[in-house]
Amino acid sequence: MLDFWQDYPEIKEKLIAVQTMMTERLAVNNTDIRDALQKFTTRGGKMVRPALFFLFSGLVDEEIEDEERLVKIAASLELLHSATLIHDDVIDDSPLRRGLPSVEAQFGKDVAVYTGDFIYTVYFELLCETMAATPFLPRNARSMKKILQGELTQMQSAFNADNSIRRYLKAISGKTAELLSLACLEGVYFSGGDKQMQRSARKIGLAIGLAFQIYDDVLNFTVGLEEADKPILTDFRQGIYTLPLLLAKEEAPEKVMPYLEAPEGLSRQECIQFSELVTDLGGITGSLFLAKHLTDQALLEIEKFPESRNREILMEVTQTLLQRNY
Amino acid sequence: MLDFWQDYPEIKEKLIAVQTMMTERLAVNNTDIRDALQKFTTRGGKMVRPALFFLFSGLVDEEIEDEERLVKIAASLELLHSATLIHDDVIDDSPLRRGLPSVEAQFGKDVAVYTGDFIYTVYFELLCETMAATPFLPRNARSMKKILQGELTQMQSAFNADNSIRRYLKAISGKTAELLSLACLEGVYFSGGDKQMQRSARKIGLAIGLAFQIYDDVLNFTVGLEEADKPILTDFRQGIYTLPLLLAKEEAPEKVMPYLEAPEGLSRQECIQFSELVTDLGGITGSLFLAKHLTDQALLEIEKFPESRNREILMEVTQTLLQRNY
Repeated sequence: MLDFWQDYPEIKEKLIAVQTMMTERLAVNNTDIRDALQKFTTRGGKMVRPALFFLFSGLVDEEIEDEERLVKIAASLELLHSATLIHDDVIDDSPLRRGLPSVEAQFGKDVAVYTGDFIYTVYFELLCETMAATPFLPRNARSMKKILQGELTQMQSAFNADNSIRRYLKAISGKTAELLSLACLEGVYFSGGDKQMQRSARKIGLAIGLAFQIYDDVLNFTVGLEEADKPILTDFRQGIYTLPLLLAKEEAPEKVMPYLEAPEGLSRQECIQFSELVTDLGGITGSLFLAKHLTDQALLEIEKFPESRNREILMEVTQTLLQRNY
Repeated sequence: MLDFWQDYPEIKEKLIAVQTMMTERLAVNNTDIRDALQKFTTRGGKMVRPALFFLFSGLVDEEIEDEERLVKIAASLELLHSATLIHDDVIDDSPLRRGLPSVEAQFGKDVAVYTGDFIYTVYFELLCETMAATPFLPRNARSMKKILQGELTQMQSAFNADNSIRRYLKAISGKTAELLSLACLEGVYFSGGDKQMQRSARKIGLAIGLAFQIYDDVLNFTVGLEEADKPILTDFRQGIYTLPLLLAKEEAPEKVMPYLEAPEGLSRQECIQFSELVTDLGGITGSLFLAKHLTDQALLEIEKFPESRNREILMEVTQTLLQRNY
C-alpha cells in the first residue's frame, strides 16, 4: 500500500526506512508471532502517521542532526497504531484487515493478543530511546490512554440507538484524531519547530484526523454494495453508529430507528436498503460536507507555513486522503 | 487476599495505599471496564510485587523524601502484572482468576482485551511520572518485553512433548522472575541503595521469582484433587508442561509420554492418576527441592543486608511464599 506514496519518492523512501526499523525491532523467537508481525507490517497500510510525521518535520527549516532518531519516532507512531488495530480485530472478530485476513483470523486470538502486547513493548522501547528527556514521553502516555478511551467510548455506545453526534465526535477524536495529531506535532517538535508551529501542527493533525475518520465511516456505507461477495456495512452491523447514520436519524428518526433494532441480523438486501435510506436522508452528503470543511480548515492552517516542496506535498496528500475509495 | 500480610501491618498499610492509587488512576467512563477493574484490583492477590518493592526499599537506610513516588512505583509493578494476567486469561479462556470469575469470563473478551490495554497505559503514565530521568524507564521497557517473550516461549512450547527443563526455566524467568526481580531492584534503587545492594536485590528477586513459580507449578499438580468440583491440572491440560512433569518424564518417559498425547481430553480420573504418577516418579519432590534450593540462595543473599525489622520480615515472607497452598 505504499503505492499511495509513489508520486512522492522522498516520502516513500523514508517510509521504507520505517518498515525496516519495525522489522528489525519486532524480531521475536516465536514463529507464529514472527510471521504475523512480518505480514502485518510489510504489507502494511498507507502509513499515514509516519508520513505525516515526516511531512511536518520537513516544514521546519532546521538541520536534522539525527536522522535515525526521526525514523524511530516515526516507527513508534506506526507501531502504536498497529497494536491498537490488532487488538481491535480481536474484539471485532474481524475476518479481514487491509483486505487480507486479520492476525486473529489467521493465527487465532492467542497470537493476536500477544502480538499486540509485544508491539506495545517495542513502541515503549523506541520512546525510551528517543524522547526520554522530553515532554513527549508523558505526552505519548496520555495519547495512548486517549486512544484507548476512544475505543471504550465506542464500545460503550455500541448498539445504543441514542448515540449522539457529540459522543461520536468524542470517540473519533480519541480513536483516530489523537494519534494523527500527535504525529504532526512530533514531526514539528523533533525537528526544532517553535511553539507556534507546534500549535499549528496539532490543530492540523486534529482536523485531518477527524476528516479522515469521517471519510472512513462514509466509505463503510458506500463501498462494496455492488460486489455480492464483499462484507458490507461491517461497522453498522457491529452496532457502531457513525456520522452518516446519526445525521440520517436526525432527519427522519422514524425511518432509521427500525433498522437499529437488530442490525447484526439484517440481510444483505436490507443492508443495501438501509444504505440507500441513509444516502437519501443526506447522511452521506452531510458527512462529506463536514469532512470537507475540516479539510479546508487544515489546508488554511498548512498555508501559514512557509512555502516549500513539503508543504506542497502535504496539501496534495491532505486532499487525496479524502478522495480515496478504500 | 491482603490477609497474607496481616502479621505485617507496616506492609499492609503501604499495600492499601497502592490499591488506592490504582483505583484513582484506573478511573474510566466505561462502566463495564470500571467494574472489571474495580473488582480485579481491590479483591486483588497477595500483591507480592509491591510488597517486595517496599521490603527492599526498607532495607536501605536512607531518608525517603517522596513517599508518594514510592507508592506510584509500587503501583506500576502491580499494574504491569495485572495487565499480563488479564490478557493471559483471554488467551487461556480461564473461567477463574484468584478464585473468582476472570475478567474475560465475567465481562467477555472485548472488555478483557481493552481492560488489559488500558492498564498498560496507566502503568506507562506512572513510569513517566516517577522515573523519566532514570535508567529505569528503558529497564521497564526491557522487562515488559521479557515478560511477553516468556509468555510467547510458553505458548510456542504448548503441547510440545519435547519441552525441556532448560526451555521451561527460560520461560519462567521471563514470565515470573523478571518482574519480581525488577520489584526488588527498584525497591533498593529508588530508596538510594548503592550498586552492590542493587546487584544483590536483583539476584534475590530472580531466585525468589523462580522458586515462586516452581512452587506454583507444584501446586497445580497437587491442589484440588480431592474436591470433585474443582478444576484440576489446568496448566497441564492446556499443554503447559512444567517442572514436575518434566522431571517425571526424565525419570520414566515411557510412563509419562502416553499422557502427553491428548492432555486436554483426559478425564478427571486420568488426571488424578497422572498426578500420582508424577508424584511417584519424584516430579514433586524434585521440584520442591529446586524451589527450596533457590529459596536458600535468596535467604543467604538477604542476610548480607544489615539487620533490621524489614530484613526479618523479608526472610519470613520468603519462606512463607513456599508454604502456601494457593
